[in-house]
Amino acid sequence: MKPRPPSPAWPRQVTVLAGGVGGAKGADGVYRLLPPHTLTVIVNTGDDFEHMGLPISPDLDTVMYTLAGIQHPEQGWGLAGDTFHALEMLGRYGAPTWFRLGDKDLATHILRRHWLDRGMTLTQVTDRLRRALGVQARLLPMSDDPVRTVVMTDEGELPFQEYFVHRGARPRVRAIRFRGIEMARPTPEVLSALDAAQVIIFAPSNPYLSLDPILALPGVRERLRRRREQVVAISPIIGGQAVKGPAAKLMQEFGLPASALTVARHYREIVGGFLLDTRDAALAPEIEALDMRVTVVDTWMRSPEDKVRVARAALRTAGWMV
Amino acid sequence: MKPRPPSPAWPRQVTVLAGGVGGAKGADGVYRLLPPHTLTVIVNTGDDFEHMGLPISPDLDTVMYTLAGIQHPEQGWGLAGDTFHALEMLGRYGAPTWFRLGDKDLATHILRRHWLDRGMTLTQVTDRLRRALGVQARLLPMSDDPVRTVVMTDEGELPFQEYFVHRGARPRVRAIRFRGIEMARPTPEVLSALDAAQVIIFAPSNPYLSLDPILALPGVRERLRRRREQVVAISPIIGGQAVKGPAAKLMQEFGLPASALTVARHYREIVGGFLLDTRDAALAPEIEALDMRVTVVDTWMRSPEDKVRVARAALRTAGWMV
Repeated sequence: MKPRPPSPAWPRQVTVLAGGVGGAKGADGVYRLLPPHTLTVIVNTGDDFEHMGLPISPDLDTVMYTLAGIQHPEQGWGLAGDTFHALEMLGRYGAPTWFRLGDKDLATHILRRHWLDRGMTLTQVTDRLRRALGVQARLLPMSDDPVRTVVMTDEGELPFQEYFVHRGARPRVRAIRFRGIEMARPTPEVLSALDAAQVIIFAPSNPYLSLDPILALPGVRERLRRRREQVVAISPIIGGQAVKGPAAKLMQEFGLPASALTVARHYREIVGGFLLDTRDAALAPEIEALDMRVTVVDTWMRSPEDKVRVARAALRTAGWMV
Repeated sequence: MKPRPPSPAWPRQVTVLAGGVGGAKGADGVYRLLPPHTLTVIVNTGDDFEHMGLPISPDLDTVMYTLAGIQHPEQGWGLAGDTFHALEMLGRYGAPTWFRLGDKDLATHILRRHWLDRGMTLTQVTDRLRRALGVQARLLPMSDDPVRTVVMTDEGELPFQEYFVHRGARPRVRAIRFRGIEMARPTPEVLSALDAAQVIIFAPSNPYLSLDPILALPGVRERLRRRREQVVAISPIIGGQAVKGPAAKLMQEFGLPASALTVARHYREIVGGFLLDTRDAALAPEIEALDMRVTVVDTWMRSPEDKVRVARAALRTAGWMV
């Protein structure tokens, strides 16, 4: 595959497909690198669930808090400096406390619930929340219809948060299902964000749990296949390990090598560019053999500068000399 | 009216009619004085309202937190040592913050909402919450049907919390309405708590805003009239002033003297005993002329000992030598 000639101007519209922490980092790099309104993030909602009557959208919130600069710096969810006094009281009432809802975080869920009950869509609620927090990028839930990721494990079928948070992703996974996906539709905003984007970036999110739900929505995969040249994936696997979360463990449980090559193969029909970590440089020829442009770069994002470096490499892989 | 001979034993069942802070103090005195299961509190729900989708029951919560010993020691609502981080975040999202919802307090409203949505009655929800907090007295909302106190003021019609909290009870009141009262029924638990009680105590709550909603429920006033000898009211007016809240101001706005005598007249048909503060001792003959037994005592409750002293005086006024 021949590299396209670099474009002289910055892209006007970049769409990032994102899950949780990896998704937030991938989106944040683009957000910091380009004019902020350039960015649209399509976010997985398969992890969403109802908890004590509150609609929790963990991936939307992680991306939103990260772009707003108020995310917790280490734990991968929630807000910096949040407290847990409501949770403590919920525990006193005998309510479950394994899902760690912070006090400030609760405000998000209370308003989401309130606004959904008043007839707003999740897309409208998300837009109102992110604007209030000063986020200038558009955040789009992948769908306004409920999709619920369910994990088939050797201990039975588990709702995603039960598997991921309550059980610490320890049960052995046999299959993953997205309940409701047959009835769900991507929103018009999602489809137009895919159509209008000059570059589409797959954030380094879990392929099976975070991005597959988005890709499983009708029309999404077809659109990406047509735009394959403009689609770049950032590997969530570095040196055979997931930076965070169970991606590598899942690969082993599925009988696949825990490797960036497995990620590239997973996306081969819809991704034309691949960001490979320097620790995995030896895999470049095999990934290039999948008809992908490969950029080898340090993809581990610990600082804002790291995120911007990775975003720049992704955009360059798509042919933009940002 | 001839005093009845004192009973040798303690009453097995005492029912207190209560509103907010005065109600909580009145109930707490009985709770501390007698075996805790002796007490049933019937609580005003006219102040209840929905705030950001959460069902708030201020009087129920004030009584519950007080009997649990976790109420805020000064402010008259909320929990001791509570924080306001969720509220701060709600404000950041542009939501109203005039109703000061603490973080721990939010847990109560979140669970109330959740359990109501799952089909529990307010009576059942309240029972579950108070048990979890270790409260051994029964707390009964006056009704499971919605009753909403509306205040007609010279600035127009205001929902109760709008008048009381948001506007600081400053607008001049012309009339008070209990919206929904025609359709509301006292619960079977409330009726049986009135029927079974050996003593019924009116806590020193606002007669117009806190106790009148309870008294306006069908069947309540009739029951009290029949039991008048066993009903004792604690004056919420001391020296022409309300200890807390707008009771005295309302009397003036209604063209009535701001006085304990006005309270006694208000209750004359249904109350046979009256606790008058020492500062108002001169009113005793006029109240006795209403066919009430009057006990003059220091009714100002600042300490647990004060509450117990007042409760004992109320029970003695009803003929129990506790």
